[in-house]
Amino acid sequence: MKISALKNQILLKKSFLCIGLDIDLEKVHASIKATEDPLFEFSKAIIDSTAAYAVAYKPNIAFFETYGSQGMASLKRVMDYLNKNHPEIFTIADAKRGDIGNTATRYAKAYYETYNFDSITVAPYMGKDSVEPFLNFEEKYAILLALTSNEGSSDFQIQKVGSQLFYEKVIQTSSQWKGSDRLMYVVGATKANAIKGIRNLIPDAFLLIPGVGAQGGSLAEVAESGLNQDVGLLVNSSRGIIYASTDTDFASKARDAAYDLQKQMQIILEKKRLI
Amino acid sequence: MKISALKNQILLKKSFLCIGLDIDLEKVHASIKATEDPLFEFSKAIIDSTAAYAVAYKPNIAFFETYGSQGMASLKRVMDYLNKNHPEIFTIADAKRGDIGNTATRYAKAYYETYNFDSITVAPYMGKDSVEPFLNFEEKYAILLALTSNEGSSDFQIQKVGSQLFYEKVIQTSSQWKGSDRLMYVVGATKANAIKGIRNLIPDAFLLIPGVGAQGGSLAEVAESGLNQDVGLLVNSSRGIIYASTDTDFASKARDAAYDLQKQMQIILEKKRLI
Repeated sequence: MKISALKNQILLKKSFLCIGLDIDLEKVHASIKATEDPLFEFSKAIIDSTAAYAVAYKPNIAFFETYGSQGMASLKRVMDYLNKNHPEIFTIADAKRGDIGNTATRYAKAYYETYNFDSITVAPYMGKDSVEPFLNFEEKYAILLALTSNEGSSDFQIQKVGSQLFYEKVIQTSSQWKGSDRLMYVVGATKANAIKGIRNLIPDAFLLIPGVGAQGGSLAEVAESGLNQDVGLLVNSSRGIIYASTDTDFASKARDAAYDLQKQMQIILEKKRLI
Repeated sequence: MKISALKNQILLKKSFLCIGLDIDLEKVHASIKATEDPLFEFSKAIIDSTAAYAVAYKPNIAFFETYGSQGMASLKRVMDYLNKNHPEIFTIADAKRGDIGNTATRYAKAYYETYNFDSITVAPYMGKDSVEPFLNFEEKYAILLALTSNEGSSDFQIQKVGSQLFYEKVIQTSSQWKGSDRLMYVVGATKANAIKGIRNLIPDAFLLIPGVGAQGGSLAEVAESGLNQDVGLLVNSSRGIIYASTDTDFASKARDAAYDLQKQMQIILEKKRLI
């Protein structure tokens, strides 16, 4: 997908909502669990009920991978369904891969080509030659872990390296890599106070922001610090939408939760005169 | 597998050789490519011809993942074959996963349970709560990226954090985590001069050392710095063994290459009076 198409979609839907598909089969309704492919059926029901309000979906690969080859067949069905029925939607493989060059290329091909995602989340620890292979594909994007929302982010990401924090070093270094115009960054919503500084380092890059809702991040704060002249944000919600109800009405409750976030986003975008 | 079983096997086979299954279908012989499941058939041929000389196999997950659900079905067949025919062999999922707690647990279950590996390689960037879920399983091991052999390792891993280099910080911090007796570390063979310092930080942990051979690392140097009283090393070779020949004799040439490394390891172990 062209980045301009993602931007157009944001303006059209007045939304920068990404919905995370972290599908825990223990939480899905019995009527879904009884189907032949519950991972797919649950995803389809969520997509059908929320696609009007979301600009991106982010399947969490671990939740498919744990079911072996069958789980990966379900992932392929989800992606085929999304790409066929909602070609305007930006898709993110939340996979957090990272390995040396020839292996990274295999991961890139797996997610960009075999499963036909627009983007994949990538880990920075192994450096340039582990990330650049993901930046080599036309209209495909790597989303690099920068500052995450979990407790353990303090172990390494905020350690001081010279005059910078480690995640700042990661952002600054990676923004010099070949193909960095196809690079986006993961920044946790619980770190809203850091987002302003991150915007100074990368004013134009898209930020993928998980952690709003269940994990405690505030949409208003994130937007205040993170929006740029092109919006430049994808704010993710997973559990708050897909498990808004665990009863038969889960799809309509998911729709309500997605609509609620979209409305909040619309108000923010209008206030900032971005739409 | 109990760690004592791995140690016993090392002494019995007089080898600390790990063979990496990074299977590039463009490099396998036409007779293998013509089969229904070339990823499995190639792995089987390599395993059958080299298992007498190796104590561990390390399938590189990207090379299976790139073929979608079919690739993962092949991986399952490889693991079932290994576990049935060579239960004494230590198995490593070279997956370099890393994500927040509930997602990390899914990855752990995928590789420890669904595919039945003894261990998995893990990335440190997201910190404690992204690694500890992998240390929660009886007789299963996480192998944490510390200092890798690729060029990009210099981007972040050897940055100065306080009085330490970043990979030293990773090793020292992680060795305090819950379950760290089930933690091993990846250290590239091209960094032999750093291994002595690493041994000071973690005298007892197993080190998985890729990069001998094709990537230029020296077995003698690695052994000199890395061996401990329990051996404590797994030295990996991939391309040097599995593509020793790309002709019909690939399996016997792989055997020769594995045997050659085992002999070198035996001489080292004898010289150090470890066997």
